[in-house]
Amino acid sequence: MAADAKISRESLAARDAADPLAGFRARFDLPDGVIYLDGNSLGALPRSAAPRLARVVADEWGRDLIRAWNSRDWMGLPQKVGDKIGRLIGAAPGQVVAADSTSVNLFKLLAAALQLNPGRRVILTEDSNFPTDLYVAQGLVRLLGGRAELRRVAGDRIIEALDEDVAVVTLTQVSYASGAVHDMAAVTRAAQNKAALVLWDLSHSAGALPVDLDGCGADLAVGCGYKYLNGGPGAPAYLYVARRHQDTIDPVLAGWMGHADPFAFDGEYRPAPGITRQLCGTPPVLALAALEEGVDLMLDADMGALRAKSMALTDLFIALVEQECRGFGIAIAGPREAARRGSQVSLRHAQGYAIMQALIANGVIGDFRAPDLMRFGFAPLYLRHTDVWDAVASLRRIMETGAWDAPEFKTRSAVT
Amino acid sequence: MAADAKISRESLAARDAADPLAGFRARFDLPDGVIYLDGNSLGALPRSAAPRLARVVADEWGRDLIRAWNSRDWMGLPQKVGDKIGRLIGAAPGQVVAADSTSVNLFKLLAAALQLNPGRRVILTEDSNFPTDLYVAQGLVRLLGGRAELRRVAGDRIIEALDEDVAVVTLTQVSYASGAVHDMAAVTRAAQNKAALVLWDLSHSAGALPVDLDGCGADLAVGCGYKYLNGGPGAPAYLYVARRHQDTIDPVLAGWMGHADPFAFDGEYRPAPGITRQLCGTPPVLALAALEEGVDLMLDADMGALRAKSMALTDLFIALVEQECRGFGIAIAGPREAARRGSQVSLRHAQGYAIMQALIANGVIGDFRAPDLMRFGFAPLYLRHTDVWDAVASLRRIMETGAWDAPEFKTRSAVT
Repeated sequence: MAADAKISRESLAARDAADPLAGFRARFDLPDGVIYLDGNSLGALPRSAAPRLARVVADEWGRDLIRAWNSRDWMGLPQKVGDKIGRLIGAAPGQVVAADSTSVNLFKLLAAALQLNPGRRVILTEDSNFPTDLYVAQGLVRLLGGRAELRRVAGDRIIEALDEDVAVVTLTQVSYASGAVHDMAAVTRAAQNKAALVLWDLSHSAGALPVDLDGCGADLAVGCGYKYLNGGPGAPAYLYVARRHQDTIDPVLAGWMGHADPFAFDGEYRPAPGITRQLCGTPPVLALAALEEGVDLMLDADMGALRAKSMALTDLFIALVEQECRGFGIAIAGPREAARRGSQVSLRHAQGYAIMQALIANGVIGDFRAPDLMRFGFAPLYLRHTDVWDAVASLRRIMETGAWDAPEFKTRSAVT
Repeated sequence: MAADAKISRESLAARDAADPLAGFRARFDLPDGVIYLDGNSLGALPRSAAPRLARVVADEWGRDLIRAWNSRDWMGLPQKVGDKIGRLIGAAPGQVVAADSTSVNLFKLLAAALQLNPGRRVILTEDSNFPTDLYVAQGLVRLLGGRAELRRVAGDRIIEALDEDVAVVTLTQVSYASGAVHDMAAVTRAAQNKAALVLWDLSHSAGALPVDLDGCGADLAVGCGYKYLNGGPGAPAYLYVARRHQDTIDPVLAGWMGHADPFAFDGEYRPAPGITRQLCGTPPVLALAALEEGVDLMLDADMGALRAKSMALTDLFIALVEQECRGFGIAIAGPREAARRGSQVSLRHAQGYAIMQALIANGVIGDFRAPDLMRFGFAPLYLRHTDVWDAVASLRRIMETGAWDAPEFKTRSAVT
């Protein structure tokens, strides 16, 4: 987009008409009067989720009761949904399970990485990693006493910080704050050249851009089900263990669903072969069913087309902010090259919190991340180019009128 | 019930007519032609669960999207549902959260117990504890190396096995296999007299019999949401930490939802005050909503009346098995005194697996636990005295006709 070619709403309507992914929007139940730019935090509702949950509740739980663990293969849901997520992140079958939360899965796999790399004690991460990733690592390090250490460096210093003490590098592929993307292949190669493992957090990647865990030779990964996978609030998370590592890991969260024969009721833990040993407690059937609907919907989309539209939408947002919102003190945070960006853009403004509340009050939903970031996520399956125009038009009006400068927009609430 | 007074189905119909809890049955959606004696494994479906889930999906997720964390107080669900469960287990508000699985919660609290009792390293448990409880303890011990040790003794040897090395005693209050009940007050007192802590697993107790954690001075507890609480398959579990211990624990599963200020996005973990620090990942909103429906239903029942009916049903089952099924080689496993029993009865038979499959094929659903136990749970909210009669009549027919001795009843499936 050349700076001198002014973008018009009409040209964007034409782009929407030609969008190969346009048909997906109708498969979501979106509220009227809302432009939803927070699918990076909680994905929108697939229309199929409600009927699926109704069937699982009435027919499976209600009619089959305990028998449904076999008759409806509830037992196999973590692996079945895991394999489907695997198709979105470049993992061949048998390497992903859907289970627990991202934080709990990260704990499992950080502990596993230390086992897989005995004699090394450093967990290397980026200083600005997602907070729960840092907290989980800190908790594990405290638990292990002198047997582990957390080393935090700037994101662009990861490769140089690799030394013979590093057991595992753990990074969120797409930064929750800036949207910047790490080069998974390059970091994985560099780490493995130094005999370190890599654990990727894909929470802001899966369903937002193509991921190729197997192709990059990744070791371990975790991710979240409720963002771009549209699995519902607090959806089960997932984890990936490359096949070559699976049977070497002695799971620290050793529960009956990861036992080789859970219904033998052995008194001794014997881990199941393969990825199944990464399960712990009883699978959350209702939540897994909702997640499967979101994943199935995503699997119908071509990931190349999705990435192309994602880059177009984020480029467009930046161009429109620059075209429409000059002089308001708004800065673009994060990468300017679409290829180095996830499916989100952050804007920086000292009054970002109040501006975001004013946007939300006007039906443009993004979120705020302390201290000064307004985050906007662009889920290509349900957003239109004209939505981006309308969102920026709202932002411009709010800045022009000073509408954000009102007491009701300055009171902090628990979330957003 | 005197052995010479033969029990008739008519007398039981009269008891059903006079049952103060009879009205609860209509609040469950039960399949026709089934007598469900497995509510100790997966509780039946409350009629309110489907409409509640439909509302949460369509109105909360669908309409409010990310805003629902505030507008519908999704953020407060773990504590809100936890406090309600607290009323069923004798816990004053602010000591229970609904979160994660029983196994994961057990891991958290076993690690917490070792912190609370520094200088001691033994986790003392019953040899026949529920397998996942044993596995979780084994996994933690392996992770901690020499800093912890698991000591397993027979259930009746717990008190004598207490010594100055024991950091924590962990027991399932009601045995999943035999239904035998530990004396919570006595064990807690004995342990605390030896300066050990006690961690109770209430999975087979909550909603089955009155529990008084605060009254017994208990330290820690966990439990499951999908059995007598009727929270749905794989429902979130819960955990209890007595208020006096809460702020001393440095959570090993340190996640953002347990942070003092999760949306400050601090790089350093600072645990929230109180029970909230026991949260880790994002709350499973859909599953918590379904669980709340089960708990609300249970809260409408008088726990004294529920326990009285539970004891009557299990006594009746034993009496009827003795009256109707003599000479078939069926033995009553577990306590004969109702007061020492949970809401379940186990029968022992070398062909228990096939007999249970034949019962299930005839609409009487219990389950089988290796090597030879047929388990029957009696959920007082939805079972009638005549159901017990009809279940035993089926058992008698199966034993008289030898109907269990068929190939289709001898093939093991994953779960029963």
